[in-house]
Amino acid sequence: MTMFETFQTVTYEGADSDNPLAFRHYDAKKQVMGKSLEEHLRFAVAYWHSFAWEGGDPFGGSTFQRDWHPQNSMENAFKKADAAFDFFRVLDVPYFCWHDLDLRPDQGNFADNLATLDQITDYLGEKMEQVGTKLLWGTANMFSERRWMSGASTNPDPDVFAFAAATVKSCMDATHKMGGENYVLWGGREGYETLLNTNMGQELDHMGRFLNMVVDYKHKIGFKGAILVEPKPQEPSKHQYDFDAATCIGFLRKYGLENEVKLNLEQGHAILAGHSFEHEIAVAAADGMLGSIDMNRNDYQSGWDTDQFPNNTPEVALCYYHILKAGGLGSGGTNFDAKVRRQSLTAEDLIAAHVGGMDICARGLEAAAAMLEDGGLEDALSERYAGWETPEAQAMLESDFESIAARVVAEDIRPEPKSGRQEILENYVNRFV
Amino acid sequence: MTMFETFQTVTYEGADSDNPLAFRHYDAKKQVMGKSLEEHLRFAVAYWHSFAWEGGDPFGGSTFQRDWHPQNSMENAFKKADAAFDFFRVLDVPYFCWHDLDLRPDQGNFADNLATLDQITDYLGEKMEQVGTKLLWGTANMFSERRWMSGASTNPDPDVFAFAAATVKSCMDATHKMGGENYVLWGGREGYETLLNTNMGQELDHMGRFLNMVVDYKHKIGFKGAILVEPKPQEPSKHQYDFDAATCIGFLRKYGLENEVKLNLEQGHAILAGHSFEHEIAVAAADGMLGSIDMNRNDYQSGWDTDQFPNNTPEVALCYYHILKAGGLGSGGTNFDAKVRRQSLTAEDLIAAHVGGMDICARGLEAAAAMLEDGGLEDALSERYAGWETPEAQAMLESDFESIAARVVAEDIRPEPKSGRQEILENYVNRFV
Amino acid sequence: MTMFETFQTVTYEGADSDNPLAFRHYDAKKQVMGKSLEEHLRFAVAYWHSFAWEGGDPFGGSTFQRDWHPQNSMENAFKKADAAFDFFRVLDVPYFCWHDLDLRPDQGNFADNLATLDQITDYLGEKMEQVGTKLLWGTANMFSERRWMSGASTNPDPDVFAFAAATVKSCMDATHKMGGENYVLWGGREGYETLLNTNMGQELDHMGRFLNMVVDYKHKIGFKGAILVEPKPQEPSKHQYDFDAATCIGFLRKYGLENEVKLNLEQGHAILAGHSFEHEIAVAAADGMLGSIDMNRNDYQSGWDTDQFPNNTPEVALCYYHILKAGGLGSGGTNFDAKVRRQSLTAEDLIAAHVGGMDICARGLEAAAAMLEDGGLEDALSERYAGWETPEAQAMLESDFESIAARVVAEDIRPEPKSGRQEILENYVNRFV
Amino acid sequence: MTMFETFQTVTYEGADSDNPLAFRHYDAKKQVMGKSLEEHLRFAVAYWHSFAWEGGDPFGGSTFQRDWHPQNSMENAFKKADAAFDFFRVLDVPYFCWHDLDLRPDQGNFADNLATLDQITDYLGEKMEQVGTKLLWGTANMFSERRWMSGASTNPDPDVFAFAAATVKSCMDATHKMGGENYVLWGGREGYETLLNTNMGQELDHMGRFLNMVVDYKHKIGFKGAILVEPKPQEPSKHQYDFDAATCIGFLRKYGLENEVKLNLEQGHAILAGHSFEHEIAVAAADGMLGSIDMNRNDYQSGWDTDQFPNNTPEVALCYYHILKAGGLGSGGTNFDAKVRRQSLTAEDLIAAHVGGMDICARGLEAAAAMLEDGGLEDALSERYAGWETPEAQAMLESDFESIAARVVAEDIRPEPKSGRQEILENYVNRFV
Ligand SMILES: [Co+2]
Ligand SMILES: [Co+2]
Ligand SMILES: [Co+2]
Ligand SMILES: [Co+2]
Ligand SMILES: [Co+2]
Ligand SMILES: [Co+2]
Ligand SMILES: [Co+2]
Ligand SMILES: [Co+2]
Repeated sequence: MTMFETFQTVTYEGADSDNPLAFRHYDAKKQVMGKSLEEHLRFAVAYWHSFAWEGGDPFGGSTFQRDWHPQNSMENAFKKADAAFDFFRVLDVPYFCWHDLDLRPDQGNFADNLATLDQITDYLGEKMEQVGTKLLWGTANMFSERRWMSGASTNPDPDVFAFAAATVKSCMDATHKMGGENYVLWGGREGYETLLNTNMGQELDHMGRFLNMVVDYKHKIGFKGAILVEPKPQEPSKHQYDFDAATCIGFLRKYGLENEVKLNLEQGHAILAGHSFEHEIAVAAADGMLGSIDMNRNDYQSGWDTDQFPNNTPEVALCYYHILKAGGLGSGGTNFDAKVRRQSLTAEDLIAAHVGGMDICARGLEAAAAMLEDGGLEDALSERYAGWETPEAQAMLESDFESIAARVVAEDIRPEPKSGRQEILENYVNRFV
Repeated sequence: MTMFETFQTVTYEGADSDNPLAFRHYDAKKQVMGKSLEEHLRFAVAYWHSFAWEGGDPFGGSTFQRDWHPQNSMENAFKKADAAFDFFRVLDVPYFCWHDLDLRPDQGNFADNLATLDQITDYLGEKMEQVGTKLLWGTANMFSERRWMSGASTNPDPDVFAFAAATVKSCMDATHKMGGENYVLWGGREGYETLLNTNMGQELDHMGRFLNMVVDYKHKIGFKGAILVEPKPQEPSKHQYDFDAATCIGFLRKYGLENEVKLNLEQGHAILAGHSFEHEIAVAAADGMLGSIDMNRNDYQSGWDTDQFPNNTPEVALCYYHILKAGGLGSGGTNFDAKVRRQSLTAEDLIAAHVGGMDICARGLEAAAAMLEDGGLEDALSERYAGWETPEAQAMLESDFESIAARVVAEDIRPEPKSGRQEILENYVNRFV
Repeated sequence: MTMFETFQTVTYEGADSDNPLAFRHYDAKKQVMGKSLEEHLRFAVAYWHSFAWEGGDPFGGSTFQRDWHPQNSMENAFKKADAAFDFFRVLDVPYFCWHDLDLRPDQGNFADNLATLDQITDYLGEKMEQVGTKLLWGTANMFSERRWMSGASTNPDPDVFAFAAATVKSCMDATHKMGGENYVLWGGREGYETLLNTNMGQELDHMGRFLNMVVDYKHKIGFKGAILVEPKPQEPSKHQYDFDAATCIGFLRKYGLENEVKLNLEQGHAILAGHSFEHEIAVAAADGMLGSIDMNRNDYQSGWDTDQFPNNTPEVALCYYHILKAGGLGSGGTNFDAKVRRQSLTAEDLIAAHVGGMDICARGLEAAAAMLEDGGLEDALSERYAGWETPEAQAMLESDFESIAARVVAEDIRPEPKSGRQEILENYVNRFV
Repeated sequence: MTMFETFQTVTYEGADSDNPLAFRHYDAKKQVMGKSLEEHLRFAVAYWHSFAWEGGDPFGGSTFQRDWHPQNSMENAFKKADAAFDFFRVLDVPYFCWHDLDLRPDQGNFADNLATLDQITDYLGEKMEQVGTKLLWGTANMFSERRWMSGASTNPDPDVFAFAAATVKSCMDATHKMGGENYVLWGGREGYETLLNTNMGQELDHMGRFLNMVVDYKHKIGFKGAILVEPKPQEPSKHQYDFDAATCIGFLRKYGLENEVKLNLEQGHAILAGHSFEHEIAVAAADGMLGSIDMNRNDYQSGWDTDQFPNNTPEVALCYYHILKAGGLGSGGTNFDAKVRRQSLTAEDLIAAHVGGMDICARGLEAAAAMLEDGGLEDALSERYAGWETPEAQAMLESDFESIAARVVAEDIRPEPKSGRQEILENYVNRFV
């Protein structure tokens, strides 16, 4: 008997429903641009926030009281798994994601970590069969235990690098075993607290080497999923090396990984880095490195990662617009790396939060698809850049300063500005959201 | 007769002086680590902020009243040059920097821009001879005139790209003629106001191509100075493509420019991008791309570029520490891309602001040199990363996940954290500043 | 013949219209909660941003080219007025707002300022009759001219205080003459650039005295409108005394003005101060000091006041929710202290920007009204605070620590947390937006 | 035997010392402006950060390993007290501060909390006698336990208000018993996570009533110390009612407490609120409400409260300048509400962090005193505001708009701006730091 047992599977009831536990927009099988919403959105629940987080924050302890607490035994790990899969049943969500540490407690040494990870992932495998939930991605938590306090692959101590390598190997194996469709790395402590004690160049080289080992191992075991890194500028570290999409892409290129690794982008991390989420998506897409998304927002007035469920359709619509333009999420998906507020104590809160998030995403994606199909934004772009389509303009790109300057003088070129039409385009978007 | 005429050349009087127009720390010929302070610091005055800016801000107009106002005639351009070089005489500063638009008004078309640029730079060349001031760098202002409102090399209109190419060519020629030691590009409007009307991928490709043309032209004319790009995350644009050091480095690598172009880093822009200045310096240094610095600070409580003179020795000391570690500024220098506040109306204000800035930099550099010579920070680094010096650790870097994981199990590796000693290192720094 | 002459008056065409110059949501006469949308929203156009701003920013000059440029003659002031009222005709907007300096150029001395203000406001009065546009508020621009560089009522020079007093008197007289419904004060330079040269206590006392003079003069002339101050935390000043709603309210209370002065709140300024707009509205409402709003947003990624037209319905809906809860805008209104982007050059851009903003506000207000009528949020509040309705709870508020502590021990009170239901309430809101 | 037992009491060795565990600037008995440094600075160690915090952060658990862990028994509470007072001996620090929850674990009910608080504070009283450490202030932690998740005095549940009242009473009694010189309230959860579930007006009224009860109880028991509230804008709450100094002062005035309550200001909280620390001090001083300070800085690039030890002399000097101008700290002191970084594991780290912080404060205070004695800043202020000293200016303040405007016309007043001299004043400060 789990805390979700009394809840029936959430169904689509349409926009007029006032049932707080019904989908009003997410009609999984609805076809949009040739695919179902389910296939477009590929929703995933984060095991970490929804089942392992206990409601603590830097100023207060646990507020949730779950029957799998305390989370220090394998027995409770199994209980937690039962609850999680019962929750997946309620949401009828196609995917979930995990960090190894969410699944079972750290054992203090690698061999026992390995054994218990095997044990719990075997159990999860059975549940996946039963409930029909698939694994979007797995990842190793290399930031919570004391051993990682000074970084994982960037640790000044090579023993920690070794422990990290062994741990990622075990998590990649587990992900592979469970049919995971991607493998993610988020380097929460791959960065620094102070430059005074940090050899940044050396640490980056180690991180680059480590990621190459990840890629090598992927090919070794025949894992077909994508390897993804998740940018975040800071927190817990003062500075995190995977600062934002552009920084990660530069890093990947430096270490020869630009064709092997993509990005898992999170709205909240974009905000912390001083970007809009659609910016990060567009940056990744421009380099063909859009992998997957964590669709959880930050509070615009808070300077830390609040990891809240999305609730603003116009914002979400612009994100999916750039995703659809880039060809969709591929093997990636829409993960909610989101947690309910620590005052949201009940099973209903957790379910409703996901339902609301899924609805907002469905609404956003449908609006994005409608804009793409209408073509207004793409037409505006084509018109604005039309000058570059001429042979003269293309030839100029292949020429040099001297010939261009000569032509500017000869033709007395005096460019005349044209309106950027920003407000008209913003109004256009508002027709769809 | 200029507004600075009654001021004598500022001299070094030592730390006990209370003369507001004397150097208390900048003793130009003082030897530090085998070079004079003058050779280390390579100070430059920015023509733009000190002579062309009239004290306006978004909410108010000109507050300064200079005898070269209004700046719409060549006659006043010459007057301004006279004042500027008289100011350089007062400061006895080795370098200055310019944007073409500071030097003479825009003429509305390229041919006249070229002719008047020639005219004024010839005149400046004579003044340089007379006063002994050299040119640290020149650059093209491609953001103020109406034609640049939608970008220069990234403009949707190829005619603007052409005008930009011709303009940069003219500015590179002028810089070369004047013996300039670097050429800088700051893309204030190379970015976007809204993604809705922006083809980011195409714009980046154009910018990459443009920068390659710059490099080609440099080699063509035999310009020996460095080509530098200056990162800034935003303002005036909502997003600027040269966001920060890491973004620029990734961009340079993508377009094959990593061995041809370096960075001109500014403290204020680092702050706007969410970084400390020493971070940006360390990032550039780690990739060998530290070119030059704009040593002007931002107000930590203001969200725009305040371009103030530096006034905090401990901060400045850490910046020069990373510069000295990286081998110094090379052909770059310490430019003050700084302006006095718009209430600072007098000649004395402008002189004192530079004197104070130069003193702070001298103090910071001396502290940095003392720390390097003492070696305390380097020793701490060596000790912290000592584990990586072993053959075993190096071998591990060349190995793979499987062998590492096997060893972790076999040796039952349980890493034991060691103190990061941050506060002790911070206290150490405070012994020198 | 004005630049807007060829445009017909914008009409409501319904949500399905794809006419960029039609209202899709703002149906002025539509009744909502017993009043028309027009009466609820009380839209105003800002003379400043729409007609006096020329497209400049800190890095570039004018981009707009209007036939009333340059704005240095009374002749062009009249041309500008003709265009403005033709624009009001196109929008059929009930109100406008002005700063004195928008209306005609500064004359360099008070007597001529007064005479020309009279002249232009007489002319505007005739236009108001003709077009039917009313004045929501007037205000004095005491931040643009050089004389205000160190503040107006807080200037270290008493002559500036005097000039400010005379200027505000003239603007209050003009506002009164034109039937203005409010008078606003925004102290853009009432603050400081550095505490080093600032006597904050004295400046605040002068500002408090000045505002008392405003109130005295209002009563003297029988002006029935509200006196409003507009909070903003900074920009152009490093710190502005009217930082945010709470700071203003504290200031008003200190100087005995809490029953005489209310607040004109702006979304962008809320964001700059680290608040949501609904927070500022709720703060003002809690003290009965909600006066009027400037419904223009800031970009969440920019650290300065971008003054953009609103375009996010969910955000706007929450703002109007708090306004409706507080009883509506009273004599205040919905002013767009907003400017089109400097690349938005055309008459159509300016019209469409206002149309889009008005539509978003109409949509937001309708959603807010629907939520209030549905009552879901109010019911949730009542339920959450129900415990305080008991006589015991009310008695406790009137008691003291000793008796409460005794009761806690006697009854062994162990409070049991209840869910805050945040996500469920957020989902509820999304049913309406 | 405590972890500090092998450390001798830290002594003053002078600026040339390179002993990391010696004071280089804090010479406790040195006389400055007629008082010893010890009497000026009144240093206090925070029990919370130094002894109760275990090194956790939102992304990782405990890193410290102390012999008083786990902190769930009274036995370990006594061990912790022994270590704390041994630490006070090493630092020879005159004061400490506590939250009740630091001292002993929460017992789950008020009666047991009261009994154990009595027990541990009796024990601390004995240690205070032995070691000579005094209590700067006590406070109640009403944010960590689950019961406070929705606020303490602002909780929707009156039972929590009651529990809070009983708790604060118990902590005031304990503070009084221990000779505490102030009592502090920091309302970490007195605010909101979302306005959607919050009745802000009602919550503020309850908080105002609660604080009046605190004041009443203070007088009842004859506690002579000051009652202080500590502003912080957010974290853990999205919004905290005690946002900043100005907000708190407005609140105190609204609820009739302006003569009864002062402020405990923290540098880090100033930064989070968008202010410099000297701003907050100046604001409090202008209203006579400067109570005490928490001299711990935030990282300028982190959006949460990093609570680091101060390490920047120029910044600290300006803070003490405003404190000395305001007459000093009175019954307040310089508390380090600061924690070592979670990687700073050792006893030496904790000692050195405090030594460094005390040194920086001593250096800053000495510089501030030297500036005050030199008088340069005060002279500049007097000169800048001299115009207000005339009888005419004072008379104008007592007059009205009509007479002032008449005079402006009659005398044709045309104010002429004078330089604000910001850079010259900044240079002046740098002569002392
Ligand atoms: Co996150
Ligand atoms: Co994430
Ligand atoms: Co700058
Ligand atoms: Co610069
Ligand atoms: Co604004
Ligand atoms: Co406004
Ligand atoms: Co703090
Ligand atoms: Co504190």
